[in-house]
Amino acid sequence: MSNDQAKERVFRALDDFAIAIPSWGFANTGTRFGKFVQAAAATNIEEKFADAAEVHRLTGVTPTMALHVLWDLPNGVADAPKIRALEAKTGIRAGSINPNLFQEAEYKYGSICNPSAEVREKATAHLLTSVEIGKALGSAEVSLWLSDGSNYPGSQSIRRRIGWMKEALAKTHAALAPGQTLLVEYKPFEPAFYHTDIADWGMALEIARSAGPQAKVLVDTGHHYQGTNIEQIVAWLIELDALGSFHFNDRKYADDDLTLGSIDPYQIFRIFHEILFEKSKGGVFNAPTFMIDQSHNLKGKVEAMVQTVVTAQELYAKAALVDHAALAELQDSCSLVDAEEAFRGVFWQDVRPWLAEWREARGLPAHPLAALREGGYVERITEERKEKNTAGASSYA
Amino acid sequence: MSNDQAKERVFRALDDFAIAIPSWGFANTGTRFGKFVQAAAATNIEEKFADAAEVHRLTGVTPTMALHVLWDLPNGVADAPKIRALEAKTGIRAGSINPNLFQEAEYKYGSICNPSAEVREKATAHLLTSVEIGKALGSAEVSLWLSDGSNYPGSQSIRRRIGWMKEALAKTHAALAPGQTLLVEYKPFEPAFYHTDIADWGMALEIARSAGPQAKVLVDTGHHYQGTNIEQIVAWLIELDALGSFHFNDRKYADDDLTLGSIDPYQIFRIFHEILFEKSKGGVFNAPTFMIDQSHNLKGKVEAMVQTVVTAQELYAKAALVDHAALAELQDSCSLVDAEEAFRGVFWQDVRPWLAEWREARGLPAHPLAALREGGYVERITEERKEKNTAGASSYA
Amino acid sequence: MSNDQAKERVFRALDDFAIAIPSWGFANTGTRFGKFVQAAAATNIEEKFADAAEVHRLTGVTPTMALHVLWDLPNGVADAPKIRALEAKTGIRAGSINPNLFQEAEYKYGSICNPSAEVREKATAHLLTSVEIGKALGSAEVSLWLSDGSNYPGSQSIRRRIGWMKEALAKTHAALAPGQTLLVEYKPFEPAFYHTDIADWGMALEIARSAGPQAKVLVDTGHHYQGTNIEQIVAWLIELDALGSFHFNDRKYADDDLTLGSIDPYQIFRIFHEILFEKSKGGVFNAPTFMIDQSHNLKGKVEAMVQTVVTAQELYAKAALVDHAALAELQDSCSLVDAEEAFRGVFWQDVRPWLAEWREARGLPAHPLAALREGGYVERITEERKEKNTAGASSYA
Amino acid sequence: MSNDQAKERVFRALDDFAIAIPSWGFANTGTRFGKFVQAAAATNIEEKFADAAEVHRLTGVTPTMALHVLWDLPNGVADAPKIRALEAKTGIRAGSINPNLFQEAEYKYGSICNPSAEVREKATAHLLTSVEIGKALGSAEVSLWLSDGSNYPGSQSIRRRIGWMKEALAKTHAALAPGQTLLVEYKPFEPAFYHTDIADWGMALEIARSAGPQAKVLVDTGHHYQGTNIEQIVAWLIELDALGSFHFNDRKYADDDLTLGSIDPYQIFRIFHEILFEKSKGGVFNAPTFMIDQSHNLKGKVEAMVQTVVTAQELYAKAALVDHAALAELQDSCSLVDAEEAFRGVFWQDVRPWLAEWREARGLPAHPLAALREGGYVERITEERKEKNTAGASSYA
Repeated sequence: MSNDQAKERVFRALDDFAIAIPSWGFANTGTRFGKFVQAAAATNIEEKFADAAEVHRLTGVTPTMALHVLWDLPNGVADAPKIRALEAKTGIRAGSINPNLFQEAEYKYGSICNPSAEVREKATAHLLTSVEIGKALGSAEVSLWLSDGSNYPGSQSIRRRIGWMKEALAKTHAALAPGQTLLVEYKPFEPAFYHTDIADWGMALEIARSAGPQAKVLVDTGHHYQGTNIEQIVAWLIELDALGSFHFNDRKYADDDLTLGSIDPYQIFRIFHEILFEKSKGGVFNAPTFMIDQSHNLKGKVEAMVQTVVTAQELYAKAALVDHAALAELQDSCSLVDAEEAFRGVFWQDVRPWLAEWREARGLPAHPLAALREGGYVERITEERKEKNTAGASSYA
Repeated sequence: MSNDQAKERVFRALDDFAIAIPSWGFANTGTRFGKFVQAAAATNIEEKFADAAEVHRLTGVTPTMALHVLWDLPNGVADAPKIRALEAKTGIRAGSINPNLFQEAEYKYGSICNPSAEVREKATAHLLTSVEIGKALGSAEVSLWLSDGSNYPGSQSIRRRIGWMKEALAKTHAALAPGQTLLVEYKPFEPAFYHTDIADWGMALEIARSAGPQAKVLVDTGHHYQGTNIEQIVAWLIELDALGSFHFNDRKYADDDLTLGSIDPYQIFRIFHEILFEKSKGGVFNAPTFMIDQSHNLKGKVEAMVQTVVTAQELYAKAALVDHAALAELQDSCSLVDAEEAFRGVFWQDVRPWLAEWREARGLPAHPLAALREGGYVERITEERKEKNTAGASSYA
Repeated sequence: MSNDQAKERVFRALDDFAIAIPSWGFANTGTRFGKFVQAAAATNIEEKFADAAEVHRLTGVTPTMALHVLWDLPNGVADAPKIRALEAKTGIRAGSINPNLFQEAEYKYGSICNPSAEVREKATAHLLTSVEIGKALGSAEVSLWLSDGSNYPGSQSIRRRIGWMKEALAKTHAALAPGQTLLVEYKPFEPAFYHTDIADWGMALEIARSAGPQAKVLVDTGHHYQGTNIEQIVAWLIELDALGSFHFNDRKYADDDLTLGSIDPYQIFRIFHEILFEKSKGGVFNAPTFMIDQSHNLKGKVEAMVQTVVTAQELYAKAALVDHAALAELQDSCSLVDAEEAFRGVFWQDVRPWLAEWREARGLPAHPLAALREGGYVERITEERKEKNTAGASSYA
Repeated sequence: MSNDQAKERVFRALDDFAIAIPSWGFANTGTRFGKFVQAAAATNIEEKFADAAEVHRLTGVTPTMALHVLWDLPNGVADAPKIRALEAKTGIRAGSINPNLFQEAEYKYGSICNPSAEVREKATAHLLTSVEIGKALGSAEVSLWLSDGSNYPGSQSIRRRIGWMKEALAKTHAALAPGQTLLVEYKPFEPAFYHTDIADWGMALEIARSAGPQAKVLVDTGHHYQGTNIEQIVAWLIELDALGSFHFNDRKYADDDLTLGSIDPYQIFRIFHEILFEKSKGGVFNAPTFMIDQSHNLKGKVEAMVQTVVTAQELYAKAALVDHAALAELQDSCSLVDAEEAFRGVFWQDVRPWLAEWREARGLPAHPLAALREGGYVERITEERKEKNTAGASSYA
């Protein structure tokens, strides 16, 4: 591949790349030991849209923002017009609609897996509301992360909860409009510690299938045990036409929600490769959507978001440099070292100059993080919001 | 539950319990750093049958021995009559038939997932031979552990290998007789280190389904990442009517093949509970078969096998004491501590006296391990075999 | 060992066993996704003492309660008389004094490891206050859990932070009264995700040694990576005379703070064995103290505490049944199976009847959990406190 | 830093960089499921020296080869002259001397930790022989990896084995010549599964200290639990002046002995950073030596070695680009994102062109892997050795 061809590939890949940002990525977050309050954190949906617009202004690839029903549309469908107005004002579209089945006290023993039929009904109603919000906003995805589970062996029936879960999701799927997708996320631990009702991709897939054809699996890169080969799971989900979306972040041990590529950038590159490999085949491919799902406890929130988008683009660009035909030949002949070098070699290529060039060609700042600093946006929102962000850290006692 | 009722439950459960032993559990094994040669290790198929018969004589619950095609039937179907004769002589029946797709040099880059069509054909032929052996011996299970995988990112195509694997297993399934089951095992690491073609239960299930209705999943308790909730996987496989069999062993970190219950006995109890819970419902249940799969590097082999069988019985008996109706009620009312105590309480019950009683009632030694020592079997085989077991430890250099 | 001898051993061990409970174990706790508010949770120090007294009334082995400076003595030493009065009133003594260096906003980048000298000084002052509180209350232990660390590679200097940490702890140690111990806890992850300044027992030991001879290591059973052999660490700390105390709890994957023995009871048994083995030698042994450190998110708090104490006693009693002389002989002759059976055999012994007998002989309820239910304490405090515990769950957004 | 300054830094770092290769890296290796026989594998010490010389000819930075006593000097000190002659012939010097305390049958229950005094003596004698070989060859390091441990709880006394281990290493240390170092390696699992006598860096450090001042810790990058922050351990060992050497390799789950940087290259970069950070201070620093320790099961052995050396150089060069002063300032001001970008930014820099330039300036092939292919060395040794490498794969049965 000539240098020009390589550059063209990178440009084409970047043209094709977009990543959604989550509204909650701009709000204060924390650990169980306390919330980390930041002066510039968004405190309402208007501020979240404003922050998202700033990230999009700087990067050009984040046109949508995922919404969280409980926090962003506390009045349900009734809040849709307000969101519509913010979309119009900021140029940011509503992304996936995220139900919340974990925060309320009555979900402590589960939501749609709760032994109480009453609680399950309430939870199902919330899912149906989320579907309606999606319809009202023209949002394509309802994205379910189910925190249900149990903390102690024997304290709940793993088996019976499967049945309850299937029931609720069948009802939810039945309410979907033709273009809507129900995303089913999995996670093996936290906040339930002994068993999580949807613990791995196998369970998510079964649950999605049992719900119906518009249900797909969502892969959160932080929701796996140590050592798991995530790109292989991605490969299988593509093979089965069941890969719906991603939640990108990074982690060292648990679900740390660190910024993407901060701990193991090579892994993200390998995940992108599986997607680009499928795209390279030229067949029908229901490509997954990309989304950031991170908890910016310590890093400035807008700053961390811009940094993440840039890193994602760089890793995607590197992965776009893989020469699939040449690689396949080396794989077929079991030329291990050559295949590996062909693969990892492009990971070592410094694509940052091309990214800067691509951005300038599209009228974007060549260096989004630097542009953020120069623009004074963070200073401005810090000033505007600091009064609202003085609430004492939440505590344990 | 009265004491009498409890004892009756235990007796009934024990009457219903059998566990297969693997022929290779009597042979010399080791680690990559060297083989541990034992003077009493079985060196041929006759000795393996003899050892199995001794275990069955002492425990009464191990009527079958799994066979390994390459080691036990090196001539394929032609060796079936010899096995038949040994069955007749020892009273031990042939259990699952285990193909070997990992030992020969040409499988270094994979067997049925090898990029070479020639190698894949050879591997498929071996699978078909295994099916034929099963038919010849009237064995119900062909049990596939596929060690295929790759060691380095990019060195093999995860996706294309899925296709090759499906092809081979479809052919294998097509050859099955009506009563035969194709068991598909999964394992996330070792001997391939970066990616294993069938890494988890989700992949095994997809592969089994794609092969056909007589294919089921086999759960080896040592084949999971740290922290995995194995009983939940078991629950799902039961839910999906896809649980075929178990390979029991224990481990601390990797696939250590230690004796069952030696590291985490509570986990095995919880696995047994899921099975007994399904049985308690009284519906149709294609109950899984049980098998030991261990590597007795340091423990005496017959001794370790007897110890394992006894431990398995004890844990199964404890699990049989769970009062499912009472537990369900406590689970439904989210009485967490009471539910847990009802569940874990029976784990604390010392069932050993009842096991001794049950054994005596069936004409078996009350204490199989003690009976093994008293019987002098190990001394006898040590004497007979020690000359054959002097081969120097295999080495690295 | 005769039955009488065994029972006598158990009784002697139980007479020797005490375990401290933490004041925060009675308060509301949660995960990063929200706090689980319980109607009966203690809302102030008086209620915590009352709850601790109830646990001690029922079990007889929890005479002390660990205190948390920030939550229980917000005015520092000035609160000591209030604590003294509560001690007198309830019969519960103040246990270890626990500084808090994680909750305040300025500790977000670290406390005694913070690059800012000013923050480090403030943190050190808090440690010195904790020492003074200990003196004022006659409490023997200041127990430091340091949550300091960093989330991103390169963002902090691992090396320079070691120096700062040593400085602060040297000052703290210098302030200790002769009888006081400085306990140094370690934890490899959470709430810092990339690096924790005191990540493992080796670092804790070095830090303790550098502080001075009255500093010892505290082992929290939930603060290890998966697969870690905790009893071996305990054995080493005993060998080095550096084992100060324990925080007991259980976990499936991360630091789940589940009730002791709920996931892996055999491991706790093995830890107790190492301590009882050292005691059996009859030499000088600075035996560690025991403490519960759990987060009762879902279980009733007093209930969970009583359950934990009972489980701890049972496992300690089982471990007391190990016949050290006989075991040593089997270990010396490498009789693996016999040694293991001698060891694990006592784990299978049902010691619950002896515990009931022991309790009655000491004027305690034979079944503490049942006695708790019958006593109506939980109903009473639920009534009294429910108004105070209605605060909405804390949230993410 | 200007481009010229950066390049100069890289050149200076490369001038300072050497890495030892292990003799066993050229020999056939495998997993417990079988040995992978390669036609070009070295079958004797002459061939190993020849292979090492080829790697050094191509890379210029591997002047020493670690020797394994049992495999390379089966006659002990008597083999030293033969080694001397090979050194003279090939220009490769003997590196660390590696005792073998795991291969012989009598070490199955341990070597220097074996309950049998006789076995311990034999093992100690082997250590003393290793020291003598070191003296005879002028090799600075005796490098101990102790595989001792146990497979089952209770089967061995963790505590008593510590004492035996200390005894043996004290004797070994006493025999060291002034310039010799005793390296103590740690590993938490495999080939012992339940407990490994030297399981982590804390134990290795205590053992080294108890042996004497010439004993240091060796860090093998594959010998940690998942999630461990290895660079932090490296930082601590530097802090304590106890870091002796490295065994470099990579892994996905267990001790996979894959080629360095093949799974997580960013981690190796971070380790190198800690060393280069200490060097940047300009004080006294007993810098650790570097060594490769890998098992090239599938990759061609010489090829894998050259690839590894090149990767190590690239990652070292990247780490050399960190601007320590600038980074310290960003760390001090807790400018997390800027500090991270300054740190990770140089990881993204493509240093390969500079490496090629540096090599040419030193009369080395610009592209060692390509030069290996062009040179025909592998073809030649394949031809010469293929007859000797036909031994059937070792097997399980």
